[in-house]
Amino acid sequence: MSKTFDIAVIGATGSVGETLVQLLEEREFPLANLHLLASAESAGQSVAFKGRNLRVKDVQTFDFSTVRIVFFAAGKSITRTYAAQASAAGCSVIDLSNALAPEQAPRVVPEVNPQCLDELSAPYVLASPTPASISLGCTLAALPESISIKQVTVTACMAVSSRGREGVSELARQTAELLNARPLQNHVFDRQMAFNVLAQAESVESDGHSATERQIAADLKGLLGLRELDVAITCIQVPVFFGDSLSVSLQTESDIDLQQVLAALEAAPALELVDADDYPTAVGDAVGQDAIYVGRVRSGFDKRSELNLWITSDNVRKGAALNAVQLAELLIKHYL
Amino acid sequence: MSKTFDIAVIGATGSVGETLVQLLEEREFPLANLHLLASAESAGQSVAFKGRNLRVKDVQTFDFSTVRIVFFAAGKSITRTYAAQASAAGCSVIDLSNALAPEQAPRVVPEVNPQCLDELSAPYVLASPTPASISLGCTLAALPESISIKQVTVTACMAVSSRGREGVSELARQTAELLNARPLQNHVFDRQMAFNVLAQAESVESDGHSATERQIAADLKGLLGLRELDVAITCIQVPVFFGDSLSVSLQTESDIDLQQVLAALEAAPALELVDADDYPTAVGDAVGQDAIYVGRVRSGFDKRSELNLWITSDNVRKGAALNAVQLAELLIKHYL
Repeated sequence: MSKTFDIAVIGATGSVGETLVQLLEEREFPLANLHLLASAESAGQSVAFKGRNLRVKDVQTFDFSTVRIVFFAAGKSITRTYAAQASAAGCSVIDLSNALAPEQAPRVVPEVNPQCLDELSAPYVLASPTPASISLGCTLAALPESISIKQVTVTACMAVSSRGREGVSELARQTAELLNARPLQNHVFDRQMAFNVLAQAESVESDGHSATERQIAADLKGLLGLRELDVAITCIQVPVFFGDSLSVSLQTESDIDLQQVLAALEAAPALELVDADDYPTAVGDAVGQDAIYVGRVRSGFDKRSELNLWITSDNVRKGAALNAVQLAELLIKHYL
Repeated sequence: MSKTFDIAVIGATGSVGETLVQLLEEREFPLANLHLLASAESAGQSVAFKGRNLRVKDVQTFDFSTVRIVFFAAGKSITRTYAAQASAAGCSVIDLSNALAPEQAPRVVPEVNPQCLDELSAPYVLASPTPASISLGCTLAALPESISIKQVTVTACMAVSSRGREGVSELARQTAELLNARPLQNHVFDRQMAFNVLAQAESVESDGHSATERQIAADLKGLLGLRELDVAITCIQVPVFFGDSLSVSLQTESDIDLQQVLAALEAAPALELVDADDYPTAVGDAVGQDAIYVGRVRSGFDKRSELNLWITSDNVRKGAALNAVQLAELLIKHYL
């Protein structure tokens, strides 16, 4: 009989946590017991798993020494309160809340920098990086090794689900309000989100960049091991429910062989390359899928040291829950 | 009594033509007679102007020698059929249909390259460039002269009105279909436009770029007189009715003084600079306005030879109709 593991998921009632639990079921993760946890106010709810309803328990009274891996998919404050306790109890931590510093919890994407785990020891403390850095990292890491990237310029079109269930509800409600000529209300977003594009996905800091923009750049450099990479990134908020789309332009040290690039992207297991006579979209391709869809692959107008791409993936699934489950799979396969 | 002019507008029943007629009224253009023209199938409709309903006449039977300026705001084929005839009759032509080659009809934006007109003679044949190149051109031309731009990378979020009234109707209809769980239909766009972002705003050519992307780059280089400028541009289609938004990243030859940049943008008459604690959007700011709104002005993360900007403007008004009317105003003020 193969080995099974006791696992806990904190934040199982949120959109990422719910997807994570679905993925544990879909991927037949070798579970012994699954514990679903949340803060006191969400405890008592139940979540479907393998045809049963599992009760969500209060994280405050949980004994972390009973599980081998815990996923932190609730807010940052819960991670900050309980991650050290879990780790001290011998339990490996996979953080999805971006609460822990990279020095405490290295950002890992199995398809990009799995070697990172070799330098750590049990109990492991890992983090799943920002959703956009996962799809960017998987795509750039798949490029032929001969390509040396000088600069990456990204406009990330973020779905409203990047703001959780409240973001999704607000777009749906505002759209209905506008179509029915009722007064528009906004709570999650700082202005009208329906039929609009917001120049920033959250408030910005004194230098004009948002924390997420800075984080995506840092995560990408860390994942690729290119600390000196020039990254320019603008995160905008678009009226799309699920699925982030990235418009990417790379400047490279020397001319690129486009056929070689296409062959390398086609061969990458994490990616689904879409032909030049077609293009992928969040709604039509990415949502609910494990793959990262890449399209519109082209050189510059008259410049072969430029590569332009369009990348779309499910921000909740591939951008968070799936990467975390893949990390757990990697841990149990080689390290635990 | 000041001088007045006989003017014709071809395509007055389209969205750009209708706005153009409104602007002639709003801006008190010194009109003697205004002739509204269209192809045979649109002739007979009427358009409101100064409290009257003007009948739209068939362009085929129109005598161009009776007017001094004609605006071509219908399809390309009408421009190709009648522009030479209008010009031969002594009438100056302002093309909004992008039908004429730049050698035949220089692209002019009064705030950027008005000096271009000095090299021409009556009857003038001018074109209003692509909407995105107007807002980009006005913004980049307003930067301090000390800034030497090496490269411009743009993701242009195009409103559905870039596809005319049919684009607007399709987004509205698809949104209602989705909210009411009815089957989705698409005619104008090649897939679901509601709650989705399309990686390209039209079909692309064999090298992967669309004609509009190529045109915006060419127009921008022409307007700025920088033939060697490196431009990377991706036009995406977003579920917004009116107003184009551009995410722009510039690489410059040397470090930039951000305060000097802000002062220069603030001083530019065509622009409305939005403070760092705020940002402009298509819906909240640009639509129905003459100004081009610029926000999110910031350097790179750790790089002062990079400038990032967000630009939003009314694609139908400032991006087309207003620029054309401003060209006519320039002609009658100095040249006719």
